[in-house]
Formats: sequence, structure tokens, C-alpha cells
Amino acid sequence: MALCMYPELLKNPGNMFPSDVLERARKILKGFGPVGAYTHSKGSLSVRRSVADYIEERDGFPSNPDHIFLTNGASPGVQKVLQCLIQHKNVGIMLPIPQYPLYSASISLFQGIPVPYYLDESRETGWTLNLEEITRALQQARKKGTDVRALCVINPGNPTGNCLSKKNIEQIIEIAHKEHIVLLADEVYQTNVYSEERPFFSFKKILMEMGPDYADQELFSFHSISKGMVGECGLRGGYFECQGVDQHIVDQLYKVASVDLCPNNVGQILIDMMVRPPVAGDASYPLYKEEMGDIYESLKRRSAKLVAALNKLEGVFCAPAQGALYVHPQITFPPKMLAAAEAEGQVPDEMYAMALLNATGVVRCLCVRLTF
Amino acid sequence: MALCMYPELLKNPGNMFPSDVLERARKILKGFGPVGAYTHSKGSLSVRRSVADYIEERDGFPSNPDHIFLTNGASPGVQKVLQCLIQHKNVGIMLPIPQYPLYSASISLFQGIPVPYYLDESRETGWTLNLEEITRALQQARKKGTDVRALCVINPGNPTGNCLSKKNIEQIIEIAHKEHIVLLADEVYQTNVYSEERPFFSFKKILMEMGPDYADQELFSFHSISKGMVGECGLRGGYFECQGVDQHIVDQLYKVASVDLCPNNVGQILIDMMVRPPVAGDASYPLYKEEMGDIYESLKRRSAKLVAALNKLEGVFCAPAQGALYVHPQITFPPKMLAAAEAEGQVPDEMYAMALLNATGVVRCLCVRLTF
Repeated sequence: MALCMYPELLKNPGNMFPSDVLERARKILKGFGPVGAYTHSKGSLSVRRSVADYIEERDGFPSNPDHIFLTNGASPGVQKVLQCLIQHKNVGIMLPIPQYPLYSASISLFQGIPVPYYLDESRETGWTLNLEEITRALQQARKKGTDVRALCVINPGNPTGNCLSKKNIEQIIEIAHKEHIVLLADEVYQTNVYSEERPFFSFKKILMEMGPDYADQELFSFHSISKGMVGECGLRGGYFECQGVDQHIVDQLYKVASVDLCPNNVGQILIDMMVRPPVAGDASYPLYKEEMGDIYESLKRRSAKLVAALNKLEGVFCAPAQGALYVHPQITFPPKMLAAAEAEGQVPDEMYAMALLNATGVVRCLCVRLTF
Repeated sequence: MALCMYPELLKNPGNMFPSDVLERARKILKGFGPVGAYTHSKGSLSVRRSVADYIEERDGFPSNPDHIFLTNGASPGVQKVLQCLIQHKNVGIMLPIPQYPLYSASISLFQGIPVPYYLDESRETGWTLNLEEITRALQQARKKGTDVRALCVINPGNPTGNCLSKKNIEQIIEIAHKEHIVLLADEVYQTNVYSEERPFFSFKKILMEMGPDYADQELFSFHSISKGMVGECGLRGGYFECQGVDQHIVDQLYKVASVDLCPNNVGQILIDMMVRPPVAGDASYPLYKEEMGDIYESLKRRSAKLVAALNKLEGVFCAPAQGALYVHPQITFPPKMLAAAEAEGQVPDEMYAMALLNATGVVRCLCVRLTF
């Protein structure tokens, strides 16, 4: 439709937009082409180049735009990869517990087998990924005859709020490599990191640092415009990068992506904006910096406030969030409550979660792993 | 992100936008809520209400917003419905030949069985849907043990450019109802109709007109912002309406939709704009009418020009397009060509299509059903 106003806005912007914003819009239009038309099914090459540049700068290792797929948010990307991995009803996918329900729902939808591994919620470690637990879950599934093909990691953690240490990531890669398991790294909270002791490391970076012995490790890394300080979740923009993935598989994913024609163009453009933010010297930089800083500080402050409030409650312990948008309390029930549950023939954590739901309408706690 | 400019644009629009455009933007913002946030997984209720109003006005029968799903274009909607229908590897889905490859690709992806029925390309009828052919295809598939669950119809036709008559639609509904088969009506070209003798009738309208005996017929109808005179295909907006579909199935589709969180908001807003266009008296109506009329006339003119040019070629016959964006010629090979193909041990239409591809780069003809 020719009713679109952007050519007029660019020609005659008045004083509504800073100069670098106009420059950016022109660049995007040039690289992108007509915004209303279909793009490449992997998404616009110009945006994929911007994403590759961002990844290279973040990690210090090359990134190939041909191995990047833009998506309508991270969730459809995760689904596409899981759909390709689950080739028959006996394929198992390892997923963390507690988890974000996307994983269990997608595995169920594609008729695979969820292979849960439990995150270690001890006070000392704070939701680390315990290698013995992964090995236990893997061996137990294989003993049952499950064809375990992939391991999903959410880092920073949803809903646990933890950030994995570099060492922890190395260990996970090592075990995945040894056991011939594909890694899916959900890194949508990579800029929501609040603890200086636990900076974010991408799986891609650590994998590359581990050298050529690990070059054949298959890794899919996901990112999104829905989180971070951007938070434009309703506009649906995301991407995934394929690292070490067999070209045949990349081609099959491209074929699957092409059935949807292309990811939505506004989401694609927002990805470009997210990975190429204004820099010092740009007219819009001061406002950008201020707004991003305000949102970041507000998220960090609210997270700390919530943790402090939870820790004041009797029987509740909550580790400070290292990242993401969540805190995940541990609740220890008193003996009287346990006795009451036993008397009623109920499981204590279920009884607590239902009572909480009925009293407050809070439902998220239903997926909390309660300790007693 | 608070960098978005629309509040400033609405407060201080200068002379860039007609008054009804500003009014529309305010209404959309009010009904929609924050454009950057997730909406309901079926899409914003305010947009679904607009769609239901549009369908009611078009067909003269009630439409329920709770049975409408907004999607990232029609293709992901078709895929979601097919995914739910294909419950096991023996489910068959009837699809027209020639077809738009979305159907065969999706059926293959979800591991169902394609049950092709051939459209009748005779000069007299021009790509009608022949009931005997549908019965033949259905019975043949059932004889093989295939559990045929659905019949896909593309009307106006892609790639055949035909519009189904009211009588033809009634017959299809009758057979689907008798055989307990779900109908999928791909009606994305409903405004691309060029022949006054063949106006567009929606399957929904005809089904409702057939009365209460057919109230249990399950029908999914698809529409999109990608076609018509709107043509905003890269922005990914579409919807489907469930008519007579069991509430349990609607609930399951809702669950599947929720794994993707929500369709992209800009696509949703464009659907609202498409189904509630400017009307006489609105400040933007003259420009809207002019642009829409120009695009429509241009499409119609180009279609007629192409048909005339094709009919001038020796051995080529092309029926005028009644709708959609396609014409579909019939090519009759001369005996010499048939002899040459036989001498080389090749199938004549394959030989022709490959020669055409090599000589011109035109690939679409590979899916043409050639006559010889």
C-alpha cells in the first residue's frame, strides 16, 4: 500500500527525530528494501549481517550470516529446531527443571520425550547446572532406550535467575561433545545481568575458546527483542545462530523456515536496532543511554527489593538474582504443615501451591520446586 | 522502549495525517493497549472483534471473536490447523492439484498423507472442482486405508486463478458433510476478483445458508493482509475463523498458539486496518479509494494482457483469470515434440519445463500440469 508515510517523514522530518535516527532509517531501508515485501526466509541478509557483527564483537569469534535465522521471537526458533531434532517418537530432549514451559510444550507437541535434569538449588551454589545430575538424567534415559539428541540450557536462567559460570559452561560443552548431544542455548536474557561476579558468557564464545577439538559440537544459540532493556515482546523479533551445525541440517531448517515465507519485517528491523544501538557521539545516544540505564537500574532494584522481602518471610530463602527477570524462592515447610498435609493425604508442595493460588491468584508458584 | 514516537505524533501530528487516520490510531491504541507488549495468544480481542464484524457484514451471518485466531500470515495458520488434524501417520489431507506448495510442504512436515484431487482444466469449465474427481480421490485413498480427515480448497484459486461458483461450493460442502471431512478454505484472494460473472462467495456464507442440517460441518477459513490490494506480505498478518469446530479443538488450537506467545502486533493492527477501511466521508477515503482502485485496475489489466499474450502463442490456451494473482495456461505439444521426447526417453512436459527453465530461468512452470 502506498499510504505509508515514511518517505514523507524522511524527507520532511521536522524536529521529531535526531539526525542519527534518520540516518539509521535510511540505512535500514537501503539494506532491507521494501518493508512490505517478503524477505529471504532466513530474514533480510542486511539484518543477519548486523547480527553476525554483533556476535563477532561480543565473542571475538567469526559469525556467518548464512547460519543465522531471524524468527518471530525466540520461541518459534526454538520450536523449529526442536521440530527438526525430534525425528521419531523415541527422541529425547534434555531440559532443565525448573524450566520455561516453551520447552516441555514443544517437546510434547512434536511428540518427543522430555528428559528433565534438575538444577541444583543449594544456597551455596545458587541454581548451578550440576554435571553429575546431567549424567544421571542422560544415563537413566538411555537405559530406558531413549535416543537423547539435545540438551537445552537457559542462561541467564528462566525462571531461576542464575548466570552460569564460565567453568560450568565448559563442563556442559564437554559432556555434550563426549555424548554427541546437540546444545540449545537460550540466551534471551543476555543483557539482564545484575551481578558483577557472574558476567554473561555465551555458549558460542566458550565453545570457540575450547579450540578445534570441539569444532564439530553442534550448538544453536537463541536471542530475542522481547527481553533485555528492549522488551518489545509483542513485535515478535528473534534470531538463532547455528554453530558447528551440519550444512545439510541448516539447509533443512531453511526449507522448514520457507514454509512460513519470512519472519515479520518490523521484528527484523528491531533486531537490527537492538544489535546496532546508538553509540557515543550519535545525537540520540544520550537519551538512549539514559533510558536503557533507567530500565536496567529499575529491574535490578526491583529484583533486590523482592529478594529482601522474600528473605524476611519465615521459612523462605531466596538467592539474589544474578540475571534474567526472575527470582526463585526456596520454601521450607514447618513440621505442623507437613503433618496437616499427611493428615489430608496431600503432597505438601501441591497443597501449598493450591492454597497460595486460591488465596492470592498467583499461579506461577505452581511450577516452583518446593523444598520440605 | 520509550523511544517510540507515536505519542508525540498523535499530540503534534502537523499536517502529515488526515483526521480520520489520527482517530483510527487513537482507537487502535485504546483497544489494543501497549503495542510492544504480548497480546492474547489468539491476538488482540479488539482486532478479533473487528474481524468478526467484517465477516458478519460480508456474509450476513454471526461470527464469534473467540473462534477467530490472528496469525503471522495465513501460512502459519494453515500449518497450525494441519498440525492439529494430522494426529498420526495415516491421516490424509485432500489438496487440489495444481496447488500452492504450502499444503504439500506442511502435510509432509507433519508426516501426513497428501491426497491429491485434480482440478478440471477443461476450456468450458475453467478449473472447476469436479465432484466425481473428489469422490474418486477420497475413495481411492480410503481403499488404501488412509484416514482422510480434511479437504483443502483454495478459492479464488492459487495458482489457477479460478473462482468457485456458489453451486460448486455447495456441492463441496455437501460431500464433506456426508463424508465427515473437515474443510479448510484458503480465501486469501477474496478481494482479487475480476469477473462479474464469478463473484466471491465465502465457504462460511454458503455453509450458513445451507441451514441447520449442516451446523456440525467443521470449517476453517483463512484470510491475510498479504494479498488483495493491501499486499503487505512482509509484515505478516492473517487470521482464521473456526466455524462449527468442536470447542475442545478450538481450545487445543489455543494451546498450540500460546506456545508462540502471540502473533506480531503490527500484523494484527494491519488486519484491523484491512477489515475496517476508510469509508465515504472520512478525510482519507478519497485517497484510499483512488489507490485501491488503481491497484485493482492494474492487476486486472495486467492479468487480461497476459492472457491475451498467451493466447497468441501457438498451442497455448489460457482461460481469463476470474480471480487471485495468477493465470494458468494449457499447452498442447505438437506431434514432432512428442516424438522428440519419446526418442530421448523423456516425459514431454518435464522436457518442456526443463527447456523453459534453462532458456528463461522461469521455474514456476515446473508445477504446471501440461496437456498433451
